Amino acid sequence: MQHFDTLIKNGLIITAADRYMADIAIRDGRIVAMGQALGEANEVIDADGLWVMPGGVDAHCHLDQPLNDGAVMADDFFTGTRSAACGGTTTVIPFAAQQKGQSLYAAVEDYHRRSEGKAMVDYAFHMIVTDPTEVVLKEELPALIEKGYSSFKIYLTYDDLKLNDREVLEVLAMARREGGMVMIHAENADCIAYITELLESQGQTKPYYHGVAHSAIAEREATHRAISLAELIDVPLLIVHVSGPDAIEQIRWAQNRGLRVYGETCPQYLVLTLDDLDQAGFEGAKYVCSPPPRDAAAQEAVWQALESGVFQVFSSDHAPFRYDDAKGKKLHGECADFQHIPNGIPGLETRLSILFSEGVIKQRIDATRFVALTATQPAKIYGLYPRKGTIAIGSDADLTLWDPNARTTIRNSELHHAVDYTPYEGLELTGKPVLTMCRGQVVSRNGQPAGEAGYGLFLKCDKPQPARPRGAAKGF
Amino acid sequence: MQHFDTLIKNGLIITAADRYMADIAIRDGRIVAMGQALGEANEVIDADGLWVMPGGVDAHCHLDQPLNDGAVMADDFFTGTRSAACGGTTTVIPFAAQQKGQSLYAAVEDYHRRSEGKAMVDYAFHMIVTDPTEVVLKEELPALIEKGYSSFKIYLTYDDLKLNDREVLEVLAMARREGGMVMIHAENADCIAYITELLESQGQTKPYYHGVAHSAIAEREATHRAISLAELIDVPLLIVHVSGPDAIEQIRWAQNRGLRVYGETCPQYLVLTLDDLDQAGFEGAKYVCSPPPRDAAAQEAVWQALESGVFQVFSSDHAPFRYDDAKGKKLHGECADFQHIPNGIPGLETRLSILFSEGVIKQRIDATRFVALTATQPAKIYGLYPRKGTIAIGSDADLTLWDPNARTTIRNSELHHAVDYTPYEGLELTGKPVLTMCRGQVVSRNGQPAGEAGYGLFLKCDKPQPARPRGAAKGF
Amino acid sequence: MQHFDTLIKNGLIITAADRYMADIAIRDGRIVAMGQALGEANEVIDADGLWVMPGGVDAHCHLDQPLNDGAVMADDFFTGTRSAACGGTTTVIPFAAQQKGQSLYAAVEDYHRRSEGKAMVDYAFHMIVTDPTEVVLKEELPALIEKGYSSFKIYLTYDDLKLNDREVLEVLAMARREGGMVMIHAENADCIAYITELLESQGQTKPYYHGVAHSAIAEREATHRAISLAELIDVPLLIVHVSGPDAIEQIRWAQNRGLRVYGETCPQYLVLTLDDLDQAGFEGAKYVCSPPPRDAAAQEAVWQALESGVFQVFSSDHAPFRYDDAKGKKLHGECADFQHIPNGIPGLETRLSILFSEGVIKQRIDATRFVALTATQPAKIYGLYPRKGTIAIGSDADLTLWDPNARTTIRNSELHHAVDYTPYEGLELTGKPVLTMCRGQVVSRNGQPAGEAGYGLFLKCDKPQPARPRGAAKGF
Amino acid sequence: MQHFDTLIKNGLIITAADRYMADIAIRDGRIVAMGQALGEANEVIDADGLWVMPGGVDAHCHLDQPLNDGAVMADDFFTGTRSAACGGTTTVIPFAAQQKGQSLYAAVEDYHRRSEGKAMVDYAFHMIVTDPTEVVLKEELPALIEKGYSSFKIYLTYDDLKLNDREVLEVLAMARREGGMVMIHAENADCIAYITELLESQGQTKPYYHGVAHSAIAEREATHRAISLAELIDVPLLIVHVSGPDAIEQIRWAQNRGLRVYGETCPQYLVLTLDDLDQAGFEGAKYVCSPPPRDAAAQEAVWQALESGVFQVFSSDHAPFRYDDAKGKKLHGECADFQHIPNGIPGLETRLSILFSEGVIKQRIDATRFVALTATQPAKIYGLYPRKGTIAIGSDADLTLWDPNARTTIRNSELHHAVDYTPYEGLELTGKPVLTMCRGQVVSRNGQPAGEAGYGLFLKCDKPQPARPRGAAKGF
Repeated sequence: MQHFDTLIKNGLIITAADRYMADIAIRDGRIVAMGQALGEANEVIDADGLWVMPGGVDAHCHLDQPLNDGAVMADDFFTGTRSAACGGTTTVIPFAAQQKGQSLYAAVEDYHRRSEGKAMVDYAFHMIVTDPTEVVLKEELPALIEKGYSSFKIYLTYDDLKLNDREVLEVLAMARREGGMVMIHAENADCIAYITELLESQGQTKPYYHGVAHSAIAEREATHRAISLAELIDVPLLIVHVSGPDAIEQIRWAQNRGLRVYGETCPQYLVLTLDDLDQAGFEGAKYVCSPPPRDAAAQEAVWQALESGVFQVFSSDHAPFRYDDAKGKKLHGECADFQHIPNGIPGLETRLSILFSEGVIKQRIDATRFVALTATQPAKIYGLYPRKGTIAIGSDADLTLWDPNARTTIRNSELHHAVDYTPYEGLELTGKPVLTMCRGQVVSRNGQPAGEAGYGLFLKCDKPQPARPRGAAKGF
Repeated sequence: MQHFDTLIKNGLIITAADRYMADIAIRDGRIVAMGQALGEANEVIDADGLWVMPGGVDAHCHLDQPLNDGAVMADDFFTGTRSAACGGTTTVIPFAAQQKGQSLYAAVEDYHRRSEGKAMVDYAFHMIVTDPTEVVLKEELPALIEKGYSSFKIYLTYDDLKLNDREVLEVLAMARREGGMVMIHAENADCIAYITELLESQGQTKPYYHGVAHSAIAEREATHRAISLAELIDVPLLIVHVSGPDAIEQIRWAQNRGLRVYGETCPQYLVLTLDDLDQAGFEGAKYVCSPPPRDAAAQEAVWQALESGVFQVFSSDHAPFRYDDAKGKKLHGECADFQHIPNGIPGLETRLSILFSEGVIKQRIDATRFVALTATQPAKIYGLYPRKGTIAIGSDADLTLWDPNARTTIRNSELHHAVDYTPYEGLELTGKPVLTMCRGQVVSRNGQPAGEAGYGLFLKCDKPQPARPRGAAKGF
Repeated sequence: MQHFDTLIKNGLIITAADRYMADIAIRDGRIVAMGQALGEANEVIDADGLWVMPGGVDAHCHLDQPLNDGAVMADDFFTGTRSAACGGTTTVIPFAAQQKGQSLYAAVEDYHRRSEGKAMVDYAFHMIVTDPTEVVLKEELPALIEKGYSSFKIYLTYDDLKLNDREVLEVLAMARREGGMVMIHAENADCIAYITELLESQGQTKPYYHGVAHSAIAEREATHRAISLAELIDVPLLIVHVSGPDAIEQIRWAQNRGLRVYGETCPQYLVLTLDDLDQAGFEGAKYVCSPPPRDAAAQEAVWQALESGVFQVFSSDHAPFRYDDAKGKKLHGECADFQHIPNGIPGLETRLSILFSEGVIKQRIDATRFVALTATQPAKIYGLYPRKGTIAIGSDADLTLWDPNARTTIRNSELHHAVDYTPYEGLELTGKPVLTMCRGQVVSRNGQPAGEAGYGLFLKCDKPQPARPRGAAKGF
Repeated sequence: MQHFDTLIKNGLIITAADRYMADIAIRDGRIVAMGQALGEANEVIDADGLWVMPGGVDAHCHLDQPLNDGAVMADDFFTGTRSAACGGTTTVIPFAAQQKGQSLYAAVEDYHRRSEGKAMVDYAFHMIVTDPTEVVLKEELPALIEKGYSSFKIYLTYDDLKLNDREVLEVLAMARREGGMVMIHAENADCIAYITELLESQGQTKPYYHGVAHSAIAEREATHRAISLAELIDVPLLIVHVSGPDAIEQIRWAQNRGLRVYGETCPQYLVLTLDDLDQAGFEGAKYVCSPPPRDAAAQEAVWQALESGVFQVFSSDHAPFRYDDAKGKKLHGECADFQHIPNGIPGLETRLSILFSEGVIKQRIDATRFVALTATQPAKIYGLYPRKGTIAIGSDADLTLWDPNARTTIRNSELHHAVDYTPYEGLELTGKPVLTMCRGQVVSRNGQPAGEAGYGLFLKCDKPQPARPRGAAKGF
């Protein structure tokens, strides 16, 4: 009879394709067997009545990222990954961000210093490329991709981050040569700046106007442009945090034409709207993120795109700024103009529960697609599969046990990030993660942390499979 | 240490979502464990270097189906399922066809008589509804659905099969009420008849003109119509054997609008064209099927739709008529007008190998999608999942071991159906099924039969999950 | 110095392309000169401040058409053309309707008897083909087309009118051979019947449910089907009375693919909605027409299609049934089930004013497009141009003088049809026709009749120009 | 009896809407009467058998435009307008181009100096805005628009011309406020530069590679972007010289969504392809223009868009560089890299004949659309209507008499520009302008000049009608 470290018994296993009852046997942090009567174990976890899903992979979150404007992210790798664990997520991929003029190596080294010994769950790094110099493109990125930093985000907006089209082309061409995966924040900077200045000149400075300035047209234009640049280079591209039907139309158009364009969306585009920014006083600042949540019709379009396969990835875009804090949302005071409010909202811990309740329980998507969107596909796209993102022999024992019937209400007082609010306060949900396990160790029980800082490992990402170009020669 | 009937060791397991190395342990015809060092077994199969995939589910094939015109299908349940087994398929779903004026019960009973004791692999029945009388709609179909006959095909063409729009609506409404799954052959009968008569009047009677008569416009029109009728009733619908871009455009349009419209395509639309019908003498008759294969651009569109998810199911539409036979293609003689040639081509045994070689090996689709298209999704859509269609604990041990590197050439002399030709003669392939297992018993080795008639079981189909309507009330 | 019968001085002439100031000189009913200081005239009409437009061509209206069900059209050629004249229309094209089993010749002869000596403005005949026998297709229609009856309407719905797809193909093929113009009423009869029976079985019999039964899906399906049949034959086709975005999408799709598909819409789709059918008691019957008016979004889509060129023709579809009349809307009593209410609403006299006010004055379309839609394009499509439909040398002096600033309110008491209501009662308009002239004779002044029965001439229609097929051979 | 300066008798008059026989009477350069037996005249021109169309308005041509790189345009206002007159064009609108750092006033003044006393036909100015400073946007452009310079072109490519998105927004916003008409050259500069450098680095420097560098994707991207920026500002926009299906798809998409986006195309996209650039030696330079001609499928798409109304304007984009000239195509020598070849091809004189022969005679478009595309619509869009662009009372007597049956072959030796080649050498045509009249004076007979330098007048352009925004407020 075999002996295991842990046995999870009687659960309903759900993967990106399958649902079936089986015990899971874990040894040395990996899944080594599935079946019945597998043997004995040091620890037996009874999952009777529970759904056993792959631990979430949050492929888009910001932790302890140095910023230029004096704002400070409230979550470091400890509080961030603690929050992740309690929400059912076992892998996070935050961003090592290059400063203009800085080497990417420096950004990566700095980010290792920030994460070292702190994480409760595993983590990899995306890079943010803001200064694609010759050295960065020819030496640093190829070397870093080989070393396990194979994905990078670029921006079409934000003054300190944005690339021009030529720089985007150079980055995409490098990704094609070297096999990296490019993510892009697609909003047209000039459009946003133009509207912002106009609004400010009219005294329309409340948080609400952030949503007006970040027009859906600006998002759609940049999405079409990004797709076109990737089509020219013939390389895959992932559009992050898509907010509504205009950008979705472009992505679907690209996919229908056979382009390898991927899409990501986030909880804020499912359950928030621009109305949330339109609150008394400065409260709207709590919902300021880019692109902004739109309206009910946009929510419907996002659901439809989740179901029909336009989106491959569902992330939090966790960007942890405290509300009542001079280094957070109130960086520029209690009544700051919207353009000076740090962008971003927290969501690491609530990501999975929201999609589970609003999506799976309300039958908008089925459970296998939930797994695909939140774990399997991000792991595949970013080169962490099959180690992460699924329940299979040989994979890390990253598992989340869900009680599909538990009723909960989101309360910031019960969350584990270091942010002083959640934009989802009061949202009533069905289904909750009751146990999260990372490499065989329980890191959260009943929504409370059960692991420790430093347990989480840094993960090297393989070159993503889909990075291979598929197109015919274009004559250049 | 556990003891099993069979252990399949060292294979690369591929499901609709995952790829991983594991041993598979089988007991009583089911998969009971996966992992390493699982125990002992009566039989150990070494799958080193092989891919272990779910046995194929061929959800669209015709076996021993009684016909009205005097033609006779060459394959009965024995030769048909023998051929299936040798090609890696472990479940077939042929059609119990109602004759006009006949009860569906009678059709089902007759079909059980025909299949009894003959099959080498498992089988379920679709029904063909040609006469949706009050009794059929209110009594027979509801009762049959409850008993495990939950899917049925209807036709918009063929004089002895076709329903008018009103009948289609009644069938769809019944499917909505009772939870059945409707498949539809979408070609406009009047268009085909009109062109056919015109061609015949001009003396254009060669097999080639079958393809002219079955215009892509006739297929597109019927596809749009079928989608519209299903949208009106608000019920899922599956369009079978889609041949090219015109019909694909309609299906994608429906899917993009949120309708639960599914699509199926077949090998003939990937590797044949209308040119194949344009051969000397009567040879073109070997390729006469409906809809006909189109052209190279259509093949490209079908591949693109397979990759991008427009299609959920890949079937053979095996319709076994001997070529040199007065009950087959030459029913009306050596030079029969195209309209009198029995429609259909054989393909049960070659279905998987063609998609494997042309799709997976040529990197048009990946292996997980191959599994989804050929096994998992048909099993889910037709209510056989999780018993069939995947590799998971508790599922039937229906497995096909593939040598991904083997080179073969399709030769009818090496196939196991009772048809005297294959339309794919001479096609060179990479990858072949080297062992097929149905419920733990080897039914084929190295492309040769290894099972026996009568082993195959009749399968009851659950009501398909997606049959639940999702739309809002329409006011009626 | 030349001498003319009539001079219209100082008006702003508006054609489908141009706007300019000029006098118009008329002799023998034709425009013989334009310019300034043209000469003398028996009568001089001062058009200072007025817009001079071509008299309207109402290419879709029903007058004194015999019906099978006992209903009687309230307007004959006298009251109908009187009403037309008062509304600015100088040419009407009602329908000579074949009865099943009857010869088309008989229908045409009968219709001449009905019109003889009655009309106040000119008229041509469309034919309605309900029984396309061999004789009708091979002899009657070709002969009638040569004789000036070159357009015909076919139906996909109504039990006594509808053709099946095969019959539609035969009619289209005849039109291609002979050069006729086919108009089609595109609604799916089976869908409507299905919903109708369902609604009736649920006791939902009020007029409102007419609009539910005539689903936009039924209209869209039939539109796609009609387009497909015309594409197969490769012949132009005109879709009449398009009600909203679903059918518009199909027409635009066809036009974008290069097909010669034309579209017509009517006032009811601009200013009525389904809510109008939802009135207390039987009042909703006043608005029962097919397809029914939809909703505000559909109105917007129709406007957009008018502006962007999807529609070529704007007609009334005048179908004159009295409301409080046992031969009209109350044919089956005060509370008849919706399916027994005669279909159609009056609109000959109000057509132009509604489009003028809601379209031109509200700047949704410009004045040249108004002329194109209401006069020039129908005249061209139906073979009456250049005799009718424009203001040009040699054309008939069919002119309507508009006061663009006059404010009016539609009151049935001020209309000149024989119907006891107008669906537009109370609608406030800007712009009215102050003088209508047909072949140089004033037929209406200030909205009052000024002509006489029998003045109107029967017009032979040329074969329409666009009837020439353009496509390449299809192989049959 | 009236007396006129000129009578044109017996011609077939064709306008953008109408075709009819009439005499045209001209006095003081204007059309004062149409009809028969109008009176006497000093000169009578017999147009029997001829088509009388409005003189062409070439709304996109370059004459004597100062350039930064040392190249010199071969045509000044004399040779350019002489060539125009001989080709049937009576109004040209070349460009007064701002130099960066220069005032627009200066550009306009300079351009008046260049045109003064030289033109044989009438002319207006578009402006090219390359440096939209505060002064330009707030003072100069508003003032110039009021003075009759109401349209301006902006560029998204060319280093010395291109604006960034913010500048485009500012220009569009100014156009909305002041009522100007914006034309845009839509190609993505960064894409072109990227491919160009790549090609050059690979030694692919032949003229052919100009066409590779100017990818259709670069054109499509810029077209979508331009449309988006105009949608944001809610102002009309005209996309100039559209070359094929990618950009057409975007324009049609915009038009279908109700945006006032206009499109222009040119002869080079109808009868040339990229193959023309692929000739021995440096010959391909003769066809270097931007965007480049594409392929046969693109030609088909352009024809389809001309017919279906996607395009409103058909211009020459005449850019006169001599081939065998060190200030022309060989500015950088006999074998210059493609990127150093002056962009542009001549076409003022051949524009109308090519569209007449390939379009009207070959029945791809009808004669009224020919007039609309080449005269009426450009005159309307650019504020010259009704003085220019039509045949109507009060309009300038700008007329071109066409012999629709004459057969000609394009030979540069018979053209009247100062360029030493035509890209259309040897093209055989049917239909030619046999007499061109500008304001009543014959300026060309039988393709030979008959006017004199200095006859042509400068035309002030009204604010274009469609410049009025139509959208609802966007909240900013």
